Amino acid sequence: MAIPYPHFIAAEKAAIETGLLAPSSPSSSLSPPPVILTQDELKKIAAYKAVEYVESGMVLGLGTGSTAKHAVDRIGELLRQGKLRDIVGIPTSKMTHEQAASLGIPLSDLDSHPVVDLAIDGADEVDPELNLVKGRGGSLLREKMVEGACKKFVVIVDESKLVKYIGGSGLAMPVEIIPFCWKFTADRLQKLFEEAGCVAKLRTFPGKDEPFVTDNRNYIVDLYFKKSIGDLKVASDAILQLAGVVEHGMFLDMATTVIIAGELGVTVKHKR
Amino acid sequence: MAIPYPHFIAAEKAAIETGLLAPSSPSSSLSPPPVILTQDELKKIAAYKAVEYVESGMVLGLGTGSTAKHAVDRIGELLRQGKLRDIVGIPTSKMTHEQAASLGIPLSDLDSHPVVDLAIDGADEVDPELNLVKGRGGSLLREKMVEGACKKFVVIVDESKLVKYIGGSGLAMPVEIIPFCWKFTADRLQKLFEEAGCVAKLRTFPGKDEPFVTDNRNYIVDLYFKKSIGDLKVASDAILQLAGVVEHGMFLDMATTVIIAGELGVTVKHKR
Repeated sequence: MAIPYPHFIAAEKAAIETGLLAPSSPSSSLSPPPVILTQDELKKIAAYKAVEYVESGMVLGLGTGSTAKHAVDRIGELLRQGKLRDIVGIPTSKMTHEQAASLGIPLSDLDSHPVVDLAIDGADEVDPELNLVKGRGGSLLREKMVEGACKKFVVIVDESKLVKYIGGSGLAMPVEIIPFCWKFTADRLQKLFEEAGCVAKLRTFPGKDEPFVTDNRNYIVDLYFKKSIGDLKVASDAILQLAGVVEHGMFLDMATTVIIAGELGVTVKHKR
Repeated sequence: MAIPYPHFIAAEKAAIETGLLAPSSPSSSLSPPPVILTQDELKKIAAYKAVEYVESGMVLGLGTGSTAKHAVDRIGELLRQGKLRDIVGIPTSKMTHEQAASLGIPLSDLDSHPVVDLAIDGADEVDPELNLVKGRGGSLLREKMVEGACKKFVVIVDESKLVKYIGGSGLAMPVEIIPFCWKFTADRLQKLFEEAGCVAKLRTFPGKDEPFVTDNRNYIVDLYFKKSIGDLKVASDAILQLAGVVEHGMFLDMATTVIIAGELGVTVKHKR
């Protein structure tokens, strides 16, 4: 159940600090103030709530994308204020590396810090079992490496990301593939999910014909499904067994907590 | 059972043509001539035998390595002699591409020819169920893509490649990985097979400290096992599930025929 913002001290605190609510908002009021929040404001609320899980001394996986960016900003802010200390950040993309470095967050990598205490990242889809689709931003491989090495993985989304089944948003499930004979691999991916009405498309740079290239110099094939692909574990193994596939954007059984910011408040779901 | 060379017309013919046996060797003799064959000569005999499976009009997967090289040479020779026509070759590496092009073999790729009639390639290990280890030459990914798209896959080896179990030669089982945080991935691979006494080593250029780089600009981690890793399908899925892994060198349930050249003759094994 969503907890309305005025009753949710932490979220309200976050909302006040982000300037979404005036400090004078009555925290005991029964009727929420008529604040219409933008999607980005919702993302920010979820991100700030997630950063409450961060403790001094932690090795932190730093996510990529518009929601995770707010969390990284917030961690930088708390470090500057001295409210957090001895944080080591493991960025999940070159972009996040640059952002975190510019905020003065000490950075490392999995080679030096193979155990990550906590990762915070956004997601493109969250299903009822807390399985995720990630990587529409193109950094799914590094995200999966870092978040697969985590003790706790907190996912932050606005409520538009909740789906009944993986692929249910009608948006892409990305698969990172080797550029060599990409058409062949894309075709095999599409055939794998023929029954789900799958369409496979090579991702290109916006407005261009050139293939989008990942941080690892691979391509992305976006899979679109018309209906559920069934057992996700089976689907995952079938995708990974294709030579030419590097990784896919389904993050199964990885999220330990999902924080969802909606118009009616923040909902926190924990893995059973 | 191995068929001794003098009784094996095709192998003998190959041996004659390769200059391994004098044309005057009696093909009906009961005692084989005391010819001591080098490992390379055995490879050549197996390769020539495999090329007997090639028919005009075929799309052919062209393998990589010292044994496959003989097969590619032989295909070029038969094309020049007009004994083969309308062949399209799909090379499995840049090296084979260059070799085949220099021999005038028409070449294509999986994007244009997604169905391959027959592939011929060597292997580093062959187990009793015709499962293979390949990729010590560093082109396992392209080989697996091409050979996974084949109707028939003929493997050519000398008898030194036969093992009781995958890894049983004491030599490497290669895994192609993303360069990003390779130490982390190598460590996870080693831990996966801890019970088999696995040691994981980054492959370097011979005599140098620099990592070996594949045709796809990835790294190779060589896994050495002290004993059997058990169920190969389970092992394969576990390896592929590691983010950071692109592909491994176990070719399970892919070979349809294995041609083994030994001192006592040629043995042909077919998949049951």
